Amino acid sequence: MPLLVMKFGGTSVANIDRIRRAAKRVGVEVAKGYDVIVIVSAMAGRTNELVGWVDEISPLYDAREYDAVVSSGEAVTAGLMALTLQEMDIPARSWQGWQVPLKTNSSHSAARIEEIPTDNINAKFGEGMQVAVVAGFQGVSPEGRITTLGRGGSDTTAVAFAAAFGAERCDIYTDVDGVYTTDPRITDKARKLDKIAFEEMLELASLGAKVLQTRSVELAMRYNVRLRVLSSFEEQSDDAGTLVCAEEEIMESNVVNGIAYSRDEAKMTLISVADRPGIAAAIFGPLSNAGVNVDMIIQNISEEGRTDMTFSCPVDQVARAEKALKGAKEKGEINFHDLVADTNVAKVSAVGIGMRSQSGVAAKMFQTLRDEGINIKVISTSEIKISVLIDRKYMELAVQSLHDAFELDKSA
Amino acid sequence: MPLLVMKFGGTSVANIDRIRRAAKRVGVEVAKGYDVIVIVSAMAGRTNELVGWVDEISPLYDAREYDAVVSSGEAVTAGLMALTLQEMDIPARSWQGWQVPLKTNSSHSAARIEEIPTDNINAKFGEGMQVAVVAGFQGVSPEGRITTLGRGGSDTTAVAFAAAFGAERCDIYTDVDGVYTTDPRITDKARKLDKIAFEEMLELASLGAKVLQTRSVELAMRYNVRLRVLSSFEEQSDDAGTLVCAEEEIMESNVVNGIAYSRDEAKMTLISVADRPGIAAAIFGPLSNAGVNVDMIIQNISEEGRTDMTFSCPVDQVARAEKALKGAKEKGEINFHDLVADTNVAKVSAVGIGMRSQSGVAAKMFQTLRDEGINIKVISTSEIKISVLIDRKYMELAVQSLHDAFELDKSA
Repeated sequence: MPLLVMKFGGTSVANIDRIRRAAKRVGVEVAKGYDVIVIVSAMAGRTNELVGWVDEISPLYDAREYDAVVSSGEAVTAGLMALTLQEMDIPARSWQGWQVPLKTNSSHSAARIEEIPTDNINAKFGEGMQVAVVAGFQGVSPEGRITTLGRGGSDTTAVAFAAAFGAERCDIYTDVDGVYTTDPRITDKARKLDKIAFEEMLELASLGAKVLQTRSVELAMRYNVRLRVLSSFEEQSDDAGTLVCAEEEIMESNVVNGIAYSRDEAKMTLISVADRPGIAAAIFGPLSNAGVNVDMIIQNISEEGRTDMTFSCPVDQVARAEKALKGAKEKGEINFHDLVADTNVAKVSAVGIGMRSQSGVAAKMFQTLRDEGINIKVISTSEIKISVLIDRKYMELAVQSLHDAFELDKSA
Repeated sequence: MPLLVMKFGGTSVANIDRIRRAAKRVGVEVAKGYDVIVIVSAMAGRTNELVGWVDEISPLYDAREYDAVVSSGEAVTAGLMALTLQEMDIPARSWQGWQVPLKTNSSHSAARIEEIPTDNINAKFGEGMQVAVVAGFQGVSPEGRITTLGRGGSDTTAVAFAAAFGAERCDIYTDVDGVYTTDPRITDKARKLDKIAFEEMLELASLGAKVLQTRSVELAMRYNVRLRVLSSFEEQSDDAGTLVCAEEEIMESNVVNGIAYSRDEAKMTLISVADRPGIAAAIFGPLSNAGVNVDMIIQNISEEGRTDMTFSCPVDQVARAEKALKGAKEKGEINFHDLVADTNVAKVSAVGIGMRSQSGVAAKMFQTLRDEGINIKVISTSEIKISVLIDRKYMELAVQSLHDAFELDKSA
C-alpha cells in the first residue's frame, strides 16, 4: 500500500471543527488507497500556555521537566484526531512519541532524532489500520524521558516519518497555501511557486520565509523526501500548494525563484582593529560563546596594520554581542577603537538554483538597487543566493523592485 | 529514609500559586527527613475540558483514545510541580504512569492496578532525589497504551504507591480539612474526627460523604495504609486533618461516629408479586443486567401466595429500572399488579464500629426519628451501619436530631 505522511500545524487543529476539517482531508487520501501517517501539532495557543506556566515557575527551568510539560499538547491532539477519524469509520489510532518509539538523543528541548523503528506502526497497518496519528514534536531519550525537538519540531517529525516509512510524499498543511516568490503582503505581484528545489527552500527558510522549519527541509533534502506545503483552509486539488523536491524534478526554472527578507537584522562594526593573523578567531570566538548568531561578515581593506570588521546579527542579540566584545577587549584578547551598532538595517536576498549556471545575477541586483537609490551596506553571496544589507526603510522598495527586475510574477 | 506519599487534588493545584503552596507543604515534610512521593491530579477544570472535547467528537468514543487524551492533564501538573520543587532547591523529578511504570490491566477508563515496580524510583532516591512527582490517575496497559483508573483515580494511585513503597502514611490534600461526623452544612454541631476506622470510612464514602473515593479506602484497608485527609488551604500541624486507619489504632470511640445521608434515592415497590422460590432472582437479575444499582431490599409478609417487593436505587436509574421490570413482565419472567416509584425519599445512616459491641443503637435511632414524627419507609442494617429511607423533606431534621441523640458533637 502506498503511504503518505500528512502534517497539520497548530492553526489547522485549533479546535474541534478544524480537527474535523483536517480529518476530512485525511479521508480523501485514504479513499485514494493510501495508508496515512498523520503528524499533529498542539492546538494553537496550547504550547504557549504551557511554556508560560513553566516560565512563571522557573525562568531557568530543568529542560527535562519543560519537555514533560510542553509535549502534552500534541498528545491531546493526537487522541482527538484518532477519535475524529474513527467517527468517520476510518480505522485509526494515536501514538505518542514514546510509543512509536521515536528515539532521540538526550538534548532536551532541542533533541535530535536518532531512530524511528517502523515495526509497531507497520504491524497495525497490517491488521487493517488505515491511519496512524502521531503526536509531533516529541520523542523519548535513552533514559526513557520525554524529549522535544524544539519549536517547529512537528515539521521535522513529519519529514523523519516520511523518510523512515518511505512515504510517497510528505504533505505539510498550514495556514498559507504554498511558497511564494516573495511575501504577498509586500507586493501583490508575488506568485505561488508550483515547485521549488530543496536548496532554494533552505535558503528561503533560513532567510525569513517562515513556511517550513529549516531543519525539516535539511532532513527532507538528505533523505529525498518530497514535501508539499499547502493550506488546510481551502479545498485542495492534487497539485495544490508547492512541492519542495530535488532539483531534478524541476524541468525549467527562473534564474531567481524568490526574494526573501529579514527585518530583524543589525550591523555591527569594530573600528580600527589591530590586523594580525588570528584576529577573526579572536573576535568571533567570544561572540559564538555568547550565543550570538553572526550572519554576514566583511573585513575592510587594511591600512597601516589596522582594519574595520563588520558583521550582522539578529537585532535582539546586539546587547549580548557588545558585552562579549567589550569583555574580550578588557581581557586584552582584541583591540579596537570603537564599536558601532546600526540597528536600522534589513537583509534582502535573491535566491535561485539557476544562478549556478547563469552569470550576471549579482550585477542585475546591484543595478536595480542603485536605480532606486538604495545604498548597499554589506554583501554576501553563496552559490544560489545573493544577500545585501540595506537601510530598513528601503526594504519594501527593494523587494518590490527586485521582484519586478527578475520578473518573478511570470513563471519560467 | 522514612517515606511519605502526599496527594494533591485538582483544586489544590488549580494554578501556579496553588502549586507553589502545595510544594511548600512538601518542603515541610522533606525538611523533617522524609523521602516523598507526590501524586498530583490535573489542574481543576482541565480534565472536564478534555472530556468535553472527546464527547463533542464522539459520544461513543474509543476508550483507549479517551485515556490518551484525558491523562494529559496530570502529566502537565507533574512537570510543573517538579519544576516548583526544584526552584525551592529540592531535588525532584516527574514521572508519568508509563515511566514508573504503573502497570494496569486493559480495562481502559476504569483500569485496575496490577503492579507498581519500585526499582526506578528507589534508584533515584538512592541518587539523592528527595521527591518523586507522579502523575495520578494514569497507568499503562500490557499493550503499552495509556490507561486511566476512572474518576477520582488519583486517590487510588496515591494509596497504591503508599502500599508498594511501604510509606509511613498517605496524606490526601483536598479542599476540606478532614472527615466530619456529618455534613457541616446541615448542622453546625458537626465535629471533625481525629481518627476514623477504614470500615467506617468505607461506609461513609459509599453513603455519600464525598471526601475519598471508595476504591482508595478499600485499597488502604487491604494493605493497611494509614490515610490522612487534610486541607491544602490551611497551615497544617502534625495532627491536622483526619487519620483513616485500622480499628486497633483507635483506642476509644463513640458508638456512632458519623451520620451520612444521600438525597438522590428512590424507592420502588412491586405490588402483589407472585411469591415463589426464585422470585428474587427473577426480579433482580434483569435490574442488574440493566445496570441498576439496587441498594436496600425488603420483602413484605406474603399473603395468599402474593407479596410486595420494595427496593431502593439512585433516583436517576428509576426509568431504567421500570423499563427492565416491565420488560421482564412482558416476557412472562415475573408477574406483578403494579409498579410504584417514590422519588421523594432520602437515605440517612448512622455508622460506627462501636455498634458491634453495643446494642440498642437501632432502637435509639428509631425512637429519635419517631419523636420527630418522621416515618421510616425502609430499614437496612450491617454490622456497623443502620440506614433508613425517609421522606426527603425530613432529611435535614433527621440528620440533626440523630447527631444530637448520639452526642456526636462530643468526642469519646
